[in-house]
Amino acid sequence: MASDTETMATKGDGAAESATSHAATPTIQWQIEQPEYDARVARVREEMEARGLDALVLYHPLRMAYISGFFHVSTERPMAIVVTLSGGLGALIPMLEREHIAKSPGVDRPKVYPEYPTGGGKHPQYHLADLLGEMGVNRAGATIGCDGLNYIDANGYDGPLLTEVVDGGATVTRARDLVDKLRYIKSETELLFIRESCVWGNLAHRLMQEKLALGRSPMDISHEAATEASRTMIAALGPGYQPLTNHWGMPATVMFHAGRSTSLPHGLPDAPGLRRGDILVTGAGSDVGGYNSELERTMIIGEPTPEFERHFGYMMLLQQAAFDALVPGRTLAEAEADVVALYAELGIGETQRHHSGHAIGLDFHEPPFIDLGDETVIAPGMCFTVEPGVYVPGLGGFRHSDTVVIRDFGSERFTFYPRDLESMIVRL
Amino acid sequence: MASDTETMATKGDGAAESATSHAATPTIQWQIEQPEYDARVARVREEMEARGLDALVLYHPLRMAYISGFFHVSTERPMAIVVTLSGGLGALIPMLEREHIAKSPGVDRPKVYPEYPTGGGKHPQYHLADLLGEMGVNRAGATIGCDGLNYIDANGYDGPLLTEVVDGGATVTRARDLVDKLRYIKSETELLFIRESCVWGNLAHRLMQEKLALGRSPMDISHEAATEASRTMIAALGPGYQPLTNHWGMPATVMFHAGRSTSLPHGLPDAPGLRRGDILVTGAGSDVGGYNSELERTMIIGEPTPEFERHFGYMMLLQQAAFDALVPGRTLAEAEADVVALYAELGIGETQRHHSGHAIGLDFHEPPFIDLGDETVIAPGMCFTVEPGVYVPGLGGFRHSDTVVIRDFGSERFTFYPRDLESMIVRL
Repeated sequence: MASDTETMATKGDGAAESATSHAATPTIQWQIEQPEYDARVARVREEMEARGLDALVLYHPLRMAYISGFFHVSTERPMAIVVTLSGGLGALIPMLEREHIAKSPGVDRPKVYPEYPTGGGKHPQYHLADLLGEMGVNRAGATIGCDGLNYIDANGYDGPLLTEVVDGGATVTRARDLVDKLRYIKSETELLFIRESCVWGNLAHRLMQEKLALGRSPMDISHEAATEASRTMIAALGPGYQPLTNHWGMPATVMFHAGRSTSLPHGLPDAPGLRRGDILVTGAGSDVGGYNSELERTMIIGEPTPEFERHFGYMMLLQQAAFDALVPGRTLAEAEADVVALYAELGIGETQRHHSGHAIGLDFHEPPFIDLGDETVIAPGMCFTVEPGVYVPGLGGFRHSDTVVIRDFGSERFTFYPRDLESMIVRL
Repeated sequence: MASDTETMATKGDGAAESATSHAATPTIQWQIEQPEYDARVARVREEMEARGLDALVLYHPLRMAYISGFFHVSTERPMAIVVTLSGGLGALIPMLEREHIAKSPGVDRPKVYPEYPTGGGKHPQYHLADLLGEMGVNRAGATIGCDGLNYIDANGYDGPLLTEVVDGGATVTRARDLVDKLRYIKSETELLFIRESCVWGNLAHRLMQEKLALGRSPMDISHEAATEASRTMIAALGPGYQPLTNHWGMPATVMFHAGRSTSLPHGLPDAPGLRRGDILVTGAGSDVGGYNSELERTMIIGEPTPEFERHFGYMMLLQQAAFDALVPGRTLAEAEADVVALYAELGIGETQRHHSGHAIGLDFHEPPFIDLGDETVIAPGMCFTVEPGVYVPGLGGFRHSDTVVIRDFGSERFTFYPRDLESMIVRL
């Protein structure tokens, strides 16, 4: 981490502004600043040297954005960023994105191809091989790491593997985890954005809860709440705000499942209106500088049954156990084992359908995972969702999800929406 | 095509209903019916036999959905469907989706692993190798096609390649295009859904146009229009309707860019309010049975300048040329060449920033492409967007996009929103 570069800058509009001028109202830019991107590239290079890589090819849009600020809409047209051990960044870019990539100052070697699939007579992957050649790494003795052997499987894109187009004798090796592992520990600015994201997820959820009404559909309620929260968010964050990862949707989002379909953890939305007795499993979040957060709650329309109260209580105990288990120095597998042991102790092992959480940041889910198979050591600056679930066929699902940051002392909740049973009862 | 199986069924609610009962009101199920999935699997097998494949592994969620109806939310947890030359379908599924996959009757060999990354002690890719073994194809002499060597690069998923886990001596070969090519020609039901999708995209766009107001932000206008259109759509299509590909957003969507940012084809949304003179480039669509359509329009707030009118006119000529060029028996490259020739004739070759369109269906963009590099022969039943663009730095972008189907005689427009200049002028 390079904490001296990670403060969020405020910028005046004019270059010649003076400190005493009333015109110099600073505008918060809700985006990572270039010095932090430079620091990220430096850390990528350190890790490349440690792994013996001469180059790193990143095809995934979020990995590209992480080291360059190039947030974009992925289509069938392949894109990639190339990091070598010194100099600027290379990028494979369709003509469509030529001006757009120019806004990322870290990228000084854009290789622009006309279009996909034509590529101006050759497939874009061969343009990428040319770029690797120009950057001095398409040669015998070089080792090229990559986050995949091909561009992402988007919109039916197809083409030769990186190993098939790199013809200079270089070794190609998979290194998807290199950037992903650097993303484990969030900077101060990243944490600030995730915390701010919680604020607007909180508003969207509050508005949704206020709009709950018998007979009204979950989709209708959710979209009205999200629109209202997004409008307020845009006004509040000011002209320096732009959604970066949620391109087509709303900056602040909220949705929920109602009734028995909540007994499946990842159900698809359905349409009927709310009825008394419905269990709701909700989700809310927002995009601040490309960063996300997660707020999920289990609610009930009308008075809870004893059966509801019992399972709600189990879920609360499990979530508390997970909060408590996230202590720096332990592994995520150890933390998950604590939660799994509590499921067993409560005699409800069969109601666990997924691990207790995932990291969150630029992506809604990202590694590492609070999972029996994840040996990652918990460290300050990591951000997780904490969301052990209790799924009871015929009754419903019980899951709160809170976004937390790991501090020296353990986990700190960024999510501040109420969690207790009384606050989750919606009397209509 | 198996046209006898491709009619959209209507279903009554009760098993014991009689033809004369008032209770037997049929409900349109806005979903592909099982006989069509069976026909798709049969076509996949024909193509596998032609290519000498004993099995086909499909990791991409839309390819899985295409042959099974298993629409789902992708996360870091890998999933795949396995097709062999006879019998039912195999599937690699996390425990989270166990009940969900059971709703797809074509899948009779679900291989359920507990969670990612743990996999219950082994990576999910090895569970997939076990499944291939149980299906008799993880053996010397077998050839396994796949749409990728690994599960999609989602949420930081990582793991060994298919070639690294298939240990029985089988040959693994890439065959991403196999299913994608079968998707080129839409069935009658698919065309019906795409046509219906146009209806609700049309409504969302109309509501958006009615809500345009000076000073109001594009995001605010768009979300209000999309919410209203979605609400109406859900009410109109009835209880048999469920969004399938647009999981977290609205069933009917609309958005637009305004001002100079329209000179970039794929800009990200920005926030300022509408001003007189702004050029708008819009987009609208909806999800019907998982199928999409595209409606895009170039509009102007206030009276157009001569410069606007001239470029709008170019765009209209180019779009008409593309409509006319889409004739069965020609190649897409030939069609695109007609459009490129017209750009040159008009002296505006430098304003073309992308090819003239893409196929559309389950995915927003899918192959084939109206592109100089696409030698696909145009055939009845294909669906395309037709959207040549004119991008003028400092002025703006000019692009209409209409969804068309190829018929024996040429292209038929499904999109029915007005295209003419007068209809695109918004006088505020």
